[in-house]
This record gives sequence, C-alpha cells and structure tokens, in this order.
Amino acid sequence: MKPLPVGSVIGILGDGQLGRMLASAAERLGFDVVVLGPNDDSPASRVAAHTIVAEYTDRDALAELSVRCDLITLEFENVPVEALQILEDMGATVYPGQKSLQICQDRHLEKSFARENGVATADYWMVDRVSDLETALSELKGKGILKTRRDGYDGHGQRRLQTGDDAVSAYDGLDGAPCILEAMVPFAGEVSVVIARRADGMMTCFDPADNTHKHGILHTSRVPSKFPDSVQTAAIAAAESLAGALGHVGVMACEFFVLEDGTLLLNEMAPRVHNSGHWTPEACLTGQFEQHIRAIAGWPLGDVSRVMDAEMENLLGDDVLKAFGDAGPEDMITLYGKRDMRPGRKMGHIVRKL
Amino acid sequence: MKPLPVGSVIGILGDGQLGRMLASAAERLGFDVVVLGPNDDSPASRVAAHTIVAEYTDRDALAELSVRCDLITLEFENVPVEALQILEDMGATVYPGQKSLQICQDRHLEKSFARENGVATADYWMVDRVSDLETALSELKGKGILKTRRDGYDGHGQRRLQTGDDAVSAYDGLDGAPCILEAMVPFAGEVSVVIARRADGMMTCFDPADNTHKHGILHTSRVPSKFPDSVQTAAIAAAESLAGALGHVGVMACEFFVLEDGTLLLNEMAPRVHNSGHWTPEACLTGQFEQHIRAIAGWPLGDVSRVMDAEMENLLGDDVLKAFGDAGPEDMITLYGKRDMRPGRKMGHIVRKL
Repeated sequence: MKPLPVGSVIGILGDGQLGRMLASAAERLGFDVVVLGPNDDSPASRVAAHTIVAEYTDRDALAELSVRCDLITLEFENVPVEALQILEDMGATVYPGQKSLQICQDRHLEKSFARENGVATADYWMVDRVSDLETALSELKGKGILKTRRDGYDGHGQRRLQTGDDAVSAYDGLDGAPCILEAMVPFAGEVSVVIARRADGMMTCFDPADNTHKHGILHTSRVPSKFPDSVQTAAIAAAESLAGALGHVGVMACEFFVLEDGTLLLNEMAPRVHNSGHWTPEACLTGQFEQHIRAIAGWPLGDVSRVMDAEMENLLGDDVLKAFGDAGPEDMITLYGKRDMRPGRKMGHIVRKL
Repeated sequence: MKPLPVGSVIGILGDGQLGRMLASAAERLGFDVVVLGPNDDSPASRVAAHTIVAEYTDRDALAELSVRCDLITLEFENVPVEALQILEDMGATVYPGQKSLQICQDRHLEKSFARENGVATADYWMVDRVSDLETALSELKGKGILKTRRDGYDGHGQRRLQTGDDAVSAYDGLDGAPCILEAMVPFAGEVSVVIARRADGMMTCFDPADNTHKHGILHTSRVPSKFPDSVQTAAIAAAESLAGALGHVGVMACEFFVLEDGTLLLNEMAPRVHNSGHWTPEACLTGQFEQHIRAIAGWPLGDVSRVMDAEMENLLGDDVLKAFGDAGPEDMITLYGKRDMRPGRKMGHIVRKL
C-alpha cells in the first residue's frame, strides 16, 4: 500500500480526549487534522486545524469531512456504523472499518466473535426480557453483571446481580434494552494489550499492562505486568488473532481477565486507542496515538520498545488539581482541556516512571 | 508565584515550527493557544485554537492577543522588542522579557554581556564601516567570520574572511549594517546547553549535547556529549550564570565552542526553545517545549532526566522524503507541516535512540 503523503488531511470522528491526542500525534507527523463531533469548544477542536460541529450522521457534515480529508478515522467505537457507510458511499476511506465497529459495539457479537476465534470469555446469557433474566440468574449459580449489549463504557449500564435476586426489579428501567448477564469470574487481575495493525497485516504490540479500576472506571495501568511471560505472550497472541480476524486497521485494545491459573478470558475489545495505553507515549519509542496514525496512513509502524517501567493514573474530576498539588516533577501530566470538572469525568492522566 | 491555572490561554508570538511544538506542549498541559504571526496557513496556526495573522508590531493585532491571552511568550528572539513593549503597556505579561531579547538580538551586546558575567567568547571587532573592517582584518592575524550584529540565524549574513582579504569587497552589499568580525577559533567541538528558568530563579538543565553543522545550519545534536564531565559541568554553570543574569524566564539555549584544552567560548545564546534541544521530548522525562511552558506558567519544572542516549538529525528540504524511505521504525519523526519543500528549509527532524 502507498503511504499517505505528508501534508495530507486526516479526519477524526469524535471530539474528546482521544481525538485530541490522535490529532496532536497526526500533526507531529506532518498531517493536518479536521475533527467532526457534536460538541462546541471540544477538547479535540482546539488542537485541530478545522472543526465541523455536527452529529455523526449529519450527511452535509460528513460530505464536508469527506471533501476536506484524505483519510478518516475515529476516536471511539460508538460512532454509528451508518456514518461510516455514508462516508464510504461518498468515496472516503475510513479506518478502522465497519466490521471492527459492528462487532465491538455489541457485547454479544464481541464475545461470540472472540470464541469463534479461539479466545475464551466468561459465561454469559442473552437477556432480552425479564423471563430471560430469570432463567439466566437461575443458571448462573453465583454472581454476575447485567450489561447492556450496546453503548456501554466506564461501567455505565451495568448492574451487579446474583442468583436469587429478583429479575423484575433488576431489569427495571432498562426499557427492554438488549442485555447480557455475564458471570463474574474470580480473577487475579486484568491485563490490557494495545495492538496496532496495518491493512497489509503488519502488526506491533505494546507490552501488556496491568489495570486497576475504581467504581468501574480505569484507575491505573502499569508496566511491566506482574503476570508471567507465558500469560503475557498468550494475551498478545489472542490480541493478534482478534485484530487479524477483524481485518482491523489502526490501534485496538483487548482487555483480559487473568484467572489464578493463568487462563485468559476476554473482557472487551475497543477498536481504537485506549485509556490503558496512555502510558505508551511517555514510556515507549512510539506511543499508541502515533502508532494508530502510522497504521491507518500505511506508514512503517514505529518501534514500540519500552524505555522505562511506568504507571499511568487517570485524573478524574477534581483529581486534576493534583496537577498543581501532589504531582512531583517526575509526574508526566497530560490534561484534556475540558472546561467542566464534573465528578468522575476523565480530565487528564499522569504517567510515572517507576 | 501563583501557577497559571489549567484552561488559561497562552499566546505565542511566532508561527513556525518552534511555535507549533510549543503550542502542542502547552495543549498537552491543558492550556489553549493563540498564535500571532505574519504567515497565512503557518505550521503553528494549524495546531492552535486560534490564529491572528499580522505583523508583530501591528497594534490592533497585539491588542487582540493581549485580550485573548492570560500569558504571552515567543518562539524566536527576532520579534521586535517594540512588540513586547506594546503588549506590556496593554497590561499583558510576556515571558521571556525584553532584556533577554535585547541582548540576544545583537551579537555585540550578547558577547559583552557574556564577558561581563564571566563567560569567555572568541575575540571580535566591531565593524560599522569599511575602515573598521580593514583594522580588524589586520589585527585578526588569521581567519575570521564577518557577521551582522542583528537578524542572523542559520549562517545567514555571515562571510568567512582572513587577514589579507580586501575589506572593501568583503563589506560590499552589507549596506553599512553594523557587523562584527569574529576570530575563528580552532575548536574540538560545539556543545549546546538548554536551560529552563522560572521567575523565582528555579532552574533545570538538560544534558549538554554535541552539535554538528552542515553549511552553517545545525545538522545533528547528540547526547551524551563526548566531552568530559568537567567540560559539561562548566557549560551548565555558564548557562546558569547567563540565564540568571538575564533574569530570563522560560527556556534558553547557550552554544559553546569547546577548545582542545576544554576551554569554553560562548558562541551564541538563544532566549527560546532551540533546535539543539529537539532530542529532549523523546529522550527525557520532560522535553524542552513542555519545560518552557512550565517555566513561564510558574508550574513546577519537570524532571529532565534522560532515559536514553540519542541523536537528533535535522531534515532539510527534501531530506524529509527520508520519512518514507531510509527512516527505520526506530527513527522518531517530527514534521513541521510546511507546505513548501525548499532546499535548506527545516522541514522536520528525527530522533534516534543510540
């Protein structure tokens, strides 16, 4: 494939912090960036050469994007697949493709896709109505999490249940949204693999990171992983298998539960740059944002060698005030330029050399 | 001093690659950026939230900049001091201050300032007319370089001469511009020290780098320096002394000739981020662009520990095509987004882990 020439224009669907960091990485490689997203004065808009403020399925806005850009990508998987179809109908190239989105947008498709490709997941039951949940709870024989199949992130749309709970009240308010009940597994930890794949199949993989969560939101990612090489190698092999089977182009992340015996269960895939890879720009020769741009642009993938042990910590809400207080000179800070410091909102992150 | 709050707006006088990299670094720390410079579609404009296209002394443009920004800085020392005066008269804070510019804009003031502060320079003679040059050439007793006192960069406005050369033809075309004739010293190499200083006097210094030049333009900077610790320590001490004496706020660079016996002679100072510090973002915990923003914003200065040995190589003109050809995956590339690939023009740079 022909590499995208320097000076080309890359469009980004999505205007949040991931779009912002993708934009800066693209610019560092000499590209111009146009952002399309629904928010005025967004984090990504302020670092891009041009911004189109519109919903993702606005045809006029997508037409403008396709005219302005040589290549289009996205910052998160909940961009409607319809937007990609409209862009492709207009002749635009969008990476990653529709398949990556379709599968990762739906927890059932995601898990069945993983299993079809030899990657295990926790047991789960489809829940489309109260009676499904009743059956699932009785078969579960333990603890589980009810999750909406679509539009979930950072623990949104999740409820912890167990056998014996009342299905009617548990399902209340979900308005018949398709869900799954996923068995909770007693895991020793979670590792995350951030992988990049080019259209020609070339792949690179960052070192697996150990994740911790607080209130369902990623709290820290740490490298090197505490798990043995055999587990890390298996996680990388699983991520490679999934990226290949998706025909994915760009960066994607796979989160795995690691059981006490080293067994890996896929938790979820994100067909994009990922919070658990935020340590990579500081700790590796090439970071995940640049690697995504290289992958979609058909450039040689960068060297992902790690030059330090590191821990990334998210700054949520007023944690960001740490940037002035607790943070020492060795804390490498990235802030997202969000105007509004709401509790739980991802405002920035710190990478610490360990 | 009170640190500049996240979300504040930083103005940058200058729209080239240094402004571009400063803007990206400021954005990463959560600031918004407004660029003022004379060029349409400039490298810095495309990564900034807002751009004012105007000459540096345009009062209306400066008024707009002062209203939009909480703090103003600059990418290069040839911004007219008058612009800073106008901004300060409007109540704006500009770092670095006028003294840093005044002294660094003029080779005679720069050298005499260095000597007053205990830092040696090569011998030089003031040349304001042909007769001055005649006297200087006869006293030189060897080789020298005729340099304009002001507005020189990358070897522009420089002529190599020696005792016996005809002063009239050597001075021809300089139109009576104030010059100096500087004795060429037989040096073993050139080291560059990039230092950051806050208004309260706190300083950090990157490891000294060895520079090589091609056709008068910086070609490579390499760390660690080949010179012994004693030389490096002396270079850092000289840079600290000069930054302190200037009351400089922000990053500045000092280039020194290193003689065979280890003697240091100041070549020049640049009161700004510098090409010879372009290896720092990749090779250190904190890079020079972020450190400049931290220094002017009154934030804690970052840790400048180096995590790898590295060499920076400039990409001039069509060298930039290397980005697709010779460059390997371990070559960390930064491109400046310049539209026009003119011979000798700085288009980008590569940092290599050694």
